[in-house]
Amino acid sequence: MGRLTARRPVLRLAADGSQRRRPDTLAVEEPLELRVDGAPLTVTMRTPGHDVELAHGFLLTEGVIGAATDLLTARYCDSVDAEGRNTYNVLDVALAPGVEPPDTSVERNFYTTSSCGVCGKASLDAVKLKSRFSPAHDQVRVPWEVVGTLPDRLREAQKVFDSTGGLHAAGLFEPDGSLLVTREDVGRHNAVDKVLGHALLEGRVPAAGTVLQVSGRASFELVQKAVMAGVPVLAAVSAPSSLAVELADEAGLTLVGFLRGGSGNVYTHPERIAL
Amino acid sequence: MGRLTARRPVLRLAADGSQRRRPDTLAVEEPLELRVDGAPLTVTMRTPGHDVELAHGFLLTEGVIGAATDLLTARYCDSVDAEGRNTYNVLDVALAPGVEPPDTSVERNFYTTSSCGVCGKASLDAVKLKSRFSPAHDQVRVPWEVVGTLPDRLREAQKVFDSTGGLHAAGLFEPDGSLLVTREDVGRHNAVDKVLGHALLEGRVPAAGTVLQVSGRASFELVQKAVMAGVPVLAAVSAPSSLAVELADEAGLTLVGFLRGGSGNVYTHPERIAL
Repeated sequence: MGRLTARRPVLRLAADGSQRRRPDTLAVEEPLELRVDGAPLTVTMRTPGHDVELAHGFLLTEGVIGAATDLLTARYCDSVDAEGRNTYNVLDVALAPGVEPPDTSVERNFYTTSSCGVCGKASLDAVKLKSRFSPAHDQVRVPWEVVGTLPDRLREAQKVFDSTGGLHAAGLFEPDGSLLVTREDVGRHNAVDKVLGHALLEGRVPAAGTVLQVSGRASFELVQKAVMAGVPVLAAVSAPSSLAVELADEAGLTLVGFLRGGSGNVYTHPERIAL
Repeated sequence: MGRLTARRPVLRLAADGSQRRRPDTLAVEEPLELRVDGAPLTVTMRTPGHDVELAHGFLLTEGVIGAATDLLTARYCDSVDAEGRNTYNVLDVALAPGVEPPDTSVERNFYTTSSCGVCGKASLDAVKLKSRFSPAHDQVRVPWEVVGTLPDRLREAQKVFDSTGGLHAAGLFEPDGSLLVTREDVGRHNAVDKVLGHALLEGRVPAAGTVLQVSGRASFELVQKAVMAGVPVLAAVSAPSSLAVELADEAGLTLVGFLRGGSGNVYTHPERIAL
């Protein structure tokens, strides 16, 4: 594969209008269609590579699978482009016997009733219902001086960002700051899915006692993914949203935001931070 | 409505471990379910407000509608939360007679054939097929000294970002730098949809002769939205992806990236930039 970056000519213009032509390195973005037992489930725009991890992480955090053995096989379909080359953009996974196929309706992520429609509260309830690996009772304590170093450790491991400036990153860490796995992707949710899929394949899910560090903001979706994998601490470099904080609070996840230069905000469950 | 921000108590920890409790302002994130003629089409996590614009922009950039008159009505369903209050999170729009309802299959954004599967090329072709308002022949020329000021002008108009640090922004500008509309959202695609939906409702689509400025990166999806609305110039503060550049090239869109401090990279169609 190795299609992480692409080179393009670019016209560089300075503020004074002076110009220079030079090659620029771009982060590659390609669609991936995920099929389950031959049926299309979703299409995501992702950076190629680690697609099998991505599939595992996506299906784990959507509540379809709970163990690596819930997937029997994952293989690229024989899809070819105009030049006859395999696109490696269609991945078909086979569920183990007894694993319920995913619901493909529009509302699959959101519990809806005729009385309530979709609302924040219903979304929170749906995640709590679906999660097999609640972090609520995880007793881990992570030193604050370790948490403060994680953005730099993640950045050091970001190989492609340095050349393109165009990728989100996610990393899973032990409480002593040692890195379990890091992944980069044009989509922030894909970077997290690849990390959690890797953890699942390594037998590290539920991801008890870990810290998930992300390079950007903390959305509802990222908190949901952490909770679904049993991660007890999620740290983000930028801001969380209101619903991200609400879900973290209710699900028992420690949520850290604005983590920069060793300082940060602890939004929920500070009992896991050791001062 | 006015549910743009929410207050939460937060534990602020400095690098030396000193701590302080204070209230923090968060950007609100809530699910919006969009229904077309009563049938669920999509659920997006968005910042509440300007939902009717969001629906118009989404349906425009998905190729479902091409004019404001293609939608007859947009109304919130009578969905209520546990306290009996309307959630304002379900919006049902009615299409005008003769407007084809959207395809709700998984592959709706991606042209697939049994031989090709999904690949970047097929995605590009699908956008070109669907677009009614190609920017390819737009003769506008925008002074580089104007382009260089747009990130600051967008930032000045970002009211909620200042208090939360948690929102993406998009703004539509005239070639002289005057602002047509700006919108903020937790989702970057939603901010663009709200801007383009506003333009549609104001009779400004196709958005010939405009510059769309976004606060973050330029993904395939954002380029697609600009092309579908007939925007000739898209400028981003951060990096574009490979597929974003390819689509901009083929669709005749001028794509500017890394626009900071008056400098930037012109990836495609520099003929619209006046030096």
